[in-house]
Amino acid sequence: MADTKNPPGAEDIIQARTRIGNLVKHTPVVNSERLDRLLGCRVFSKAECLQETGSFKARGATNAVFSLAAEKACQGVATHSSGNHAAALARAAALRGVPAYIVMPANAPRIKVQAVEYYGAKITFCEPTLSARQKTLQKVITDTGACFIHPYDEPLVIAGQATAALELFEQVPKLDLLLAPIGGGGLMSGCALATALARPSVRLVGTEPRGADDAFRSLQEGRLLPQENPQTIADGLRTQLSELTFSILSRHLERIVTVSEEAMVKALRLAAEHLKLVIEPSAAVPLAALLECDFGQRGKNVGVILSGGNVEPDALAGYLKD
Amino acid sequence: MADTKNPPGAEDIIQARTRIGNLVKHTPVVNSERLDRLLGCRVFSKAECLQETGSFKARGATNAVFSLAAEKACQGVATHSSGNHAAALARAAALRGVPAYIVMPANAPRIKVQAVEYYGAKITFCEPTLSARQKTLQKVITDTGACFIHPYDEPLVIAGQATAALELFEQVPKLDLLLAPIGGGGLMSGCALATALARPSVRLVGTEPRGADDAFRSLQEGRLLPQENPQTIADGLRTQLSELTFSILSRHLERIVTVSEEAMVKALRLAAEHLKLVIEPSAAVPLAALLECDFGQRGKNVGVILSGGNVEPDALAGYLKD
Repeated sequence: MADTKNPPGAEDIIQARTRIGNLVKHTPVVNSERLDRLLGCRVFSKAECLQETGSFKARGATNAVFSLAAEKACQGVATHSSGNHAAALARAAALRGVPAYIVMPANAPRIKVQAVEYYGAKITFCEPTLSARQKTLQKVITDTGACFIHPYDEPLVIAGQATAALELFEQVPKLDLLLAPIGGGGLMSGCALATALARPSVRLVGTEPRGADDAFRSLQEGRLLPQENPQTIADGLRTQLSELTFSILSRHLERIVTVSEEAMVKALRLAAEHLKLVIEPSAAVPLAALLECDFGQRGKNVGVILSGGNVEPDALAGYLKD
Repeated sequence: MADTKNPPGAEDIIQARTRIGNLVKHTPVVNSERLDRLLGCRVFSKAECLQETGSFKARGATNAVFSLAAEKACQGVATHSSGNHAAALARAAALRGVPAYIVMPANAPRIKVQAVEYYGAKITFCEPTLSARQKTLQKVITDTGACFIHPYDEPLVIAGQATAALELFEQVPKLDLLLAPIGGGGLMSGCALATALARPSVRLVGTEPRGADDAFRSLQEGRLLPQENPQTIADGLRTQLSELTFSILSRHLERIVTVSEEAMVKALRLAAEHLKLVIEPSAAVPLAALLECDFGQRGKNVGVILSGGNVEPDALAGYLKD
């Protein structure tokens, strides 16, 4: 792993592409004329909900795990997460044939625990507090010698996420804007670096729930602000930027827009009705921005990373009924 | 249009591929390791829910419309349908720049009327009986000179549907079985002819709701039996075989299996949870067959045509909640 937290460079991103090319899916771009008419722009959705493990997280985790030297890898990899990074890391470790140790809060949703179990990771449950998670993870690492793979504060992870945008640029040559959701900022950072590398004229707009807007506030203030008591159904976006992702986003984004919970639910329903895709609330945020915000998108070709599709059928039913 | 109802030949199918190649989508094949483990076989789902107009019907309708001689085409095309063929025909006519006349029952669902309107077709509403639909269509044709494009009893339509299977064979070289739903039999007939042409070793299994099993009974009796009072949530499969599709299916299918309504709902939920795809009940029928029937699929590579994704969000919510 990188010793200092510098952004991944062009070589890191190109190498990520080669390294994970046959280990993750080349996801399709989905569009709908009727949705375009409704939103007033042409929307090209990179369907990362169809990615392995149901989210873009497979890209970064796989790149990180397959970057490890053999003698380091054989001791395994570890993380604390109740979300998509956990399943992605568990799958990447299984592919490489090394152990994965996942620290999860005892109240993690059944569907997420099952995903991690499916890939054979060893789960350690802990109290659902950040300090308990960190302490438990530290103990697991001390006991096993496993390598901690951070979900976003890690250049190799960001380089992996960048491949989603690289693919999209090849699939849709004439994009004017690129939108992605921001949680910890790993996906948006990868998108920003890929854009600078491959399509620098594309305008970058970050999107965040109004109830978890640490990135919006941080960019506005020009310094990293904490996420305080996030309130949003977008469970993947409750985390906060790191110094690394903050510095990348500050340098590259045109702006960040924030959206309401209502717009996210409406966007999720539009994705089901017009794109025929199941997306999780976090993935609905960029589509919600197209519904609710004006940042010069009218008549433009807009790329959107539909980041994931891991939502329980019951919860999905609730959103569709609204 | 063909004067006699012979099955389309190899040239018709190859020509359909060329004719519609840039007018409809080359849909992705979606799979999930976890779903495979659950079903006990490797399932490769051809996602026709992501097709233009949300179903495979775009293939056949587009092939038929673009096969018409110019002097015939300019008088327009017509059909009676409350379903996916209507939207597909409306779009194909709009692409060719000719009028489309659609006869729909006055009680057709809002979402289906909107789809037809979106493509600019002229809708004539009638009483919701078969005789009213036929009579109204006849009047429309007499008044306009439009060409009737039957949803399945038409060789050019069947040749168009065959292209879905041809693409799947190229996307997944090692299939052992191919499954598709049977309503009027156009899709399954196309799949059968494509298989005979391109991959004759693939075993063909038709799938039908138990509550609309005219094809199952017809093949068992060796003669075309009517669909009587169909009872199924699979609104696309309530139609009955024609002499043409009956003769093709009789000749080519290994067998037809029938499934319960419960298995269809369960399959629809599995598609949302594991494939992240919104499918309509008709499209869930082959997946339901993998859940409920045993026809030697265990451990095999099974191709499935997920025929469409046109289901209202409210109805989808209901199925997901079950």
